[in-house]
Amino acid sequence: MSERSYCGKLTEERIGEQVLLKGWVQKRRDLGGLIFIDLRDVSGLVQIVFNPAISQDALKKAESVRSEFVLEVKGKVVAREESTINENMTTGKLEVEAEELTILNKSETPPFGIQDNLDTTEEIRLKYRYLDLRRKPMQETFKLRHRTTQAIRNFLNEEDFLEMETPMLTKSTPEGARDYLVPSRVHPGEFYALPQSPQLFKQLLMVGGFEKYYQIARCFRDEDLRADRQPEFTQIDIETSFMTKDDIIEMMERMMKKVMEEVKGLDVTTPFPRMKYDEAMERYGSDKPDTRFAMELVNVSEIVKDSGFKVFSGAVESGGKVSGLNVKGSAKDFSRKNIDQLTEFVKIYGAKGLAWLKAEEGQLTGPISKFLTEQEVEDIQSLMSVEDGDLLLFVADKTKVVYESLGALRLKLGKELGLIDESKFNFLWITDWPLLEYDEESGRYFAAHHPFTMPSPGALEKFHTAPDQIKAEAYDLVLNGYELGGGSLRIHEKELQEKMFEALGFSKEEANEQFGFLMEALEFGAPPHGGIALGFDRFIMLLAGRNNLRDTILFPKTASASCLLTEAPSEVDEAQLKELNLKHRE
Amino acid sequence: MSERSYCGKLTEERIGEQVLLKGWVQKRRDLGGLIFIDLRDVSGLVQIVFNPAISQDALKKAESVRSEFVLEVKGKVVAREESTINENMTTGKLEVEAEELTILNKSETPPFGIQDNLDTTEEIRLKYRYLDLRRKPMQETFKLRHRTTQAIRNFLNEEDFLEMETPMLTKSTPEGARDYLVPSRVHPGEFYALPQSPQLFKQLLMVGGFEKYYQIARCFRDEDLRADRQPEFTQIDIETSFMTKDDIIEMMERMMKKVMEEVKGLDVTTPFPRMKYDEAMERYGSDKPDTRFAMELVNVSEIVKDSGFKVFSGAVESGGKVSGLNVKGSAKDFSRKNIDQLTEFVKIYGAKGLAWLKAEEGQLTGPISKFLTEQEVEDIQSLMSVEDGDLLLFVADKTKVVYESLGALRLKLGKELGLIDESKFNFLWITDWPLLEYDEESGRYFAAHHPFTMPSPGALEKFHTAPDQIKAEAYDLVLNGYELGGGSLRIHEKELQEKMFEALGFSKEEANEQFGFLMEALEFGAPPHGGIALGFDRFIMLLAGRNNLRDTILFPKTASASCLLTEAPSEVDEAQLKELNLKHRE
Repeated sequence: MSERSYCGKLTEERIGEQVLLKGWVQKRRDLGGLIFIDLRDVSGLVQIVFNPAISQDALKKAESVRSEFVLEVKGKVVAREESTINENMTTGKLEVEAEELTILNKSETPPFGIQDNLDTTEEIRLKYRYLDLRRKPMQETFKLRHRTTQAIRNFLNEEDFLEMETPMLTKSTPEGARDYLVPSRVHPGEFYALPQSPQLFKQLLMVGGFEKYYQIARCFRDEDLRADRQPEFTQIDIETSFMTKDDIIEMMERMMKKVMEEVKGLDVTTPFPRMKYDEAMERYGSDKPDTRFAMELVNVSEIVKDSGFKVFSGAVESGGKVSGLNVKGSAKDFSRKNIDQLTEFVKIYGAKGLAWLKAEEGQLTGPISKFLTEQEVEDIQSLMSVEDGDLLLFVADKTKVVYESLGALRLKLGKELGLIDESKFNFLWITDWPLLEYDEESGRYFAAHHPFTMPSPGALEKFHTAPDQIKAEAYDLVLNGYELGGGSLRIHEKELQEKMFEALGFSKEEANEQFGFLMEALEFGAPPHGGIALGFDRFIMLLAGRNNLRDTILFPKTASASCLLTEAPSEVDEAQLKELNLKHRE
Repeated sequence: MSERSYCGKLTEERIGEQVLLKGWVQKRRDLGGLIFIDLRDVSGLVQIVFNPAISQDALKKAESVRSEFVLEVKGKVVAREESTINENMTTGKLEVEAEELTILNKSETPPFGIQDNLDTTEEIRLKYRYLDLRRKPMQETFKLRHRTTQAIRNFLNEEDFLEMETPMLTKSTPEGARDYLVPSRVHPGEFYALPQSPQLFKQLLMVGGFEKYYQIARCFRDEDLRADRQPEFTQIDIETSFMTKDDIIEMMERMMKKVMEEVKGLDVTTPFPRMKYDEAMERYGSDKPDTRFAMELVNVSEIVKDSGFKVFSGAVESGGKVSGLNVKGSAKDFSRKNIDQLTEFVKIYGAKGLAWLKAEEGQLTGPISKFLTEQEVEDIQSLMSVEDGDLLLFVADKTKVVYESLGALRLKLGKELGLIDESKFNFLWITDWPLLEYDEESGRYFAAHHPFTMPSPGALEKFHTAPDQIKAEAYDLVLNGYELGGGSLRIHEKELQEKMFEALGFSKEEANEQFGFLMEALEFGAPPHGGIALGFDRFIMLLAGRNNLRDTILFPKTASASCLLTEAPSEVDEAQLKELNLKHRE
C-alpha cells in the first residue's frame, strides 16, 4: 500500500483494497458526525469518508481541513450505498474510508473557487494563474495540448523528419513585424533579436543537407496585441527539400487527418478543398473563409453597372464593384433599426453604406427598389437565388472595401443567426496568392508572405511590368475561418532572390547587409525547398473549442504584454543597464 | 518512377529497377569516356555512371557538373563489376546508370571539402555552417540528437508526464547568473528577462496541480563563455509532485537506461552508484568525479600531522590537509622537469607547491624523503598501496585548494596517461549537498543549488547557528566527470522559504519584491514537489563522443557570443532604440 493510487482512476474492481491517495480538497461536507471530502488530483475526484468508527484520529484531523488543503489519505475502497451513488462523478459508485490522514500543506481561502464555471475577472485568473490552472477546463486544455504535440511529433518522426533547434538570439531584420531586441553586453551598442520565426535558419538547414526539418518553435513579435495575438507564440515549423507543393500539401493533410483522429476522434476527409486566393475573396470576402456555412458574396456588378441607382453604377464605373449577401428567410427579423446597426458595422471596414432589399411576394422592396428596373430585379433574384422572406444586403465600393466589409458582415451574421455548425472542422487550402502587395502609404511593394517566397513560373518578366500580377507558390491552411498556417516553396536561386529584394525596394547594399549570409548560402548548392508554419496556440484553441488564445497558453501576457502573476516586465538595476552600455532616454 | 529513392538506401534487391535520385555531388571522376559521380543525400552516397552508350545527353550535362551541384538523376540500378566493388561504401556493390540528368542548382567551389576530417579553422566552419553541417559527422550528431530527444520524450510520455511550455519573456531576478534582458516597448524603462531556467514556472505548475511536467527548454545565461558554455542552451526540465527523492532518482535511472539502450545500444546497470558530496570531494577532489578510472586522492593528514616536514604538518595544523595521488608505475616516466610542469599546473588552482616521492626498492625517494620518519614512510606506503615504480604526488594546503588542485591533476593525468576507458558511460549520483555556500568576497551565503532547494530535516534550527552544516535534499547526476544535471526537492512551505531568503541575506521587502508571487503561491496548497534539469547539449556531446559543445548545437555562438554566420548581434536603427526609450551611454 506504499504505492500511490490516483483518485479519478479508482474503479469498482478495487473495492475492498487499501489505497494511498494524495491530492487537494475540492470540497468538505460535515454530515451526521461524519466528514466527507472530495479529494482531487490530476486524474479526477473521489469521495473520502471520515468515520469515527474507522479512525477517530483521522476524523479529528479532517476537522481542520479546508478547501485546497493538500492531503495524504490511507484508507479502504468501499462501495457507496445505492442512495448515495453520484452518477455525475466517474468514481461516484464508490468512496474511500479514511484510516490515516496526513495534512501535507495548508491553504488560505482561494480568491475564487476551483470550479468549471468561474464568476471572476480574467485579471484575477491571471494573477492567480496557478489556481486557475487547477480548474478542470484548464487541465483538459493543456492535456489536449500535450496530446496534440505528441501526435504531430509522432507523425513527423515517422516521416523521417528531424526535430532541430534553431537559435533564439538571432539577427534583427527590419523587414516583417517589430523585433524584440536583446542588448549584447560583450558587444556594447549591438543587439540580438528574438526570432519572429525560424524562417532563415530552416532554409539554411535545407542548404545544410538535412532535407526534412521540424521544430515546435517559440516565436516573438513585438506588436500591439489583440485577442488572438501574444508577444510569444508557438508554431509548428516545417521545412523540406526536393518536395513539390503538392507533396507538401498532401503530407500536411495526412498529418492533420492523423491529429484529428488521435486527438478528437474525428475522421476528416482528405484531400482538403483548395481554393484560389481570388476566388476566396470573391466568394467570401476573406483570404481565410469560414466554409462551415454558405451565404456567399454574390457579385451583381454586371447586372447593375448601368443602373439608375447611381451608388451602384457609379461604384462599377470607377473600377469598384457591387456585391451582396442573401440572408435567407431573415427579412422579417431585421427592422430598419437592425439594418442601421449593420450599416454602422460595415462602415468600420470603410464602406460608405449598406443597401438592402427584402423579398416579398415575388418582389424586392426597400428604399432602393424604385431605382431598379424590372430586368435588374429579375436578374438579381435569379443570380442570388432569392425566395420570399429573404433579406438582401449590398455594398458598392472599391473592391477591397466590398470584400472586407461584406466578408466581416457575413461572419457576423453567420454567428448571430446560428448558421455555423460548431461541430465541424472545415480545413481549406488557399492557393495562388499574390506575391507582392502594394502599400499606398509607403509607396512600395511588400511581400504578401515573406521575401523568400518563390514566385510562380513566368514571374521574372513581370517584376518590372506588372508586379502585382505575380502569383506566389504559396499555400495557406485555413480552419473554420482562422488562418492555421502558411507555407510556400522558397527561392533557392541567388539571382531570383536578388530580383525579389529589388522589387521590395532594397538597394543591393541593404539586401547584402541584412541577408548577405542567405544569398551567399544560395550560391553553394541550395536545394529546391519549401515548407509551412502552423500557429499552434490557435490550433489548440480551435481543437479545445475555446475562443481566447490566452486559455491555451500556460502563462500568457495581457493586452499590454504584462504577466500579471510575476509582474514582468519590471524595472532592473541601474548596474544591469550600465553593463549593457544603455540608459533611459530623457 | 516518379517516387524518389534515397541514395544511401539502395540495395542489391533493387538491381534492375528504375530510380529517381536527388542530392549533391560529393565527387566527380572522369575515366575512359565515362563520368562517375558520387551522389549524396541525407541517407548517404551512391555512385552514378554517365555512359555515352546510355545517354549522350546526360553525359554532356554531367560534364558541367562540379562538387556540391544539386542534381536530379533518373537511371537504372545495376551491379558493379567485381573489380570495382567498393567495400567502404554501403552501396558499394551497385551503381546507377544515368538516363536523365537535371541540374537543380549550381554551386561555387566551397571553402572547404564536405568530408569527415577537415583541415580548416572553426571560424570558417561557423561562417559557412550550412556547409559544415553537410559533413557526415555533423549529420550523424544531429540525427543522434533527434533520436535522443524522442527517446526521452517517449519515456516521459509513457510515465504520464505532460510536455508544457513556459514563458521566455519573464521577470528578471538578480539572484543567479546574469540575465539576458529584453526591453519593453509598451512599458518604457522596464525589461523582461530571458529565463535562466523554467524553475519558478515549473514549481508554479506543480502548485497548479499538473503533478508531472517536462519541457525540453531553451535557457539563457549572459556569462563569459568557456568551451562548455553557450549563451543559450537546452535542458531537459522535469518536475513532479508527491514523489520522494528516491522516486525521482529511480525514475531518472530508468530514463537513462532506456535512452542509452535506444540511442547507443548499451545496457547500463541500474541503480547508479550514489556518493555523498563530502565523499566525492575527499576521494576525487571533485563534485563531479570521473569514476572511469581510479587514482583516487588519499588523505595522509593523520600520518603527517606531526611530521618534520613543516609544509605537511603546518597545513594540517592550520586546519587544512595533505592528500596525495599514487600515479601507479609512473616513477620512471616523470623527470624533474615533468614534475615541475605539474607543479605549475596545480598552482593554477591556488596550490603553493607539489611534493613528490618515488617508490624504489621498497623505499620512497625524493627531495622531501629526508624529512619523513621511517614510520611515516611505512604508513604512507601502506595507506597509498605503494609498489616499486609508483610516483606519489602531494598537495598540502587549505582543504578547498587540496581538493581543487589534486582533483584537476587527477583528471589531467588520467587523460594523459590513457587511464580512461572511453567506451564506458559511468553514471553517478552525488547526494547530501551543502545547502548554502559562504562567499568570502561578498561576505554572505549563497544557495549551493538555488534558493528553492529543500533543506534536509533538522535544518530549521541550524539556520542561525551553523548554516554551512545544513544539507540539501539535492542530487546531481554525473556522467564521465561531467555534471549532467542537478535536481532537488523544493521548498513547498512559505515559512521555510522565508527562512531561506533570510539566510541568503534578503530583507523581507527584497524577498517580496522578487519572489512575492512564489511565496503567495505557497500559501494556497502547494504540494510537496521536486525535480531535475539535465544539460541536454552536454549529454549529446558525451553520447556523440565529441569534446566541443559547439558541435552539438546547429548554429552556436563563439566565445564572444557572436554568430559568425548571421553576424548577430548587430547594430539596430536609432528608431528602434527610440521606441524602447533607450539610448547608448556616453
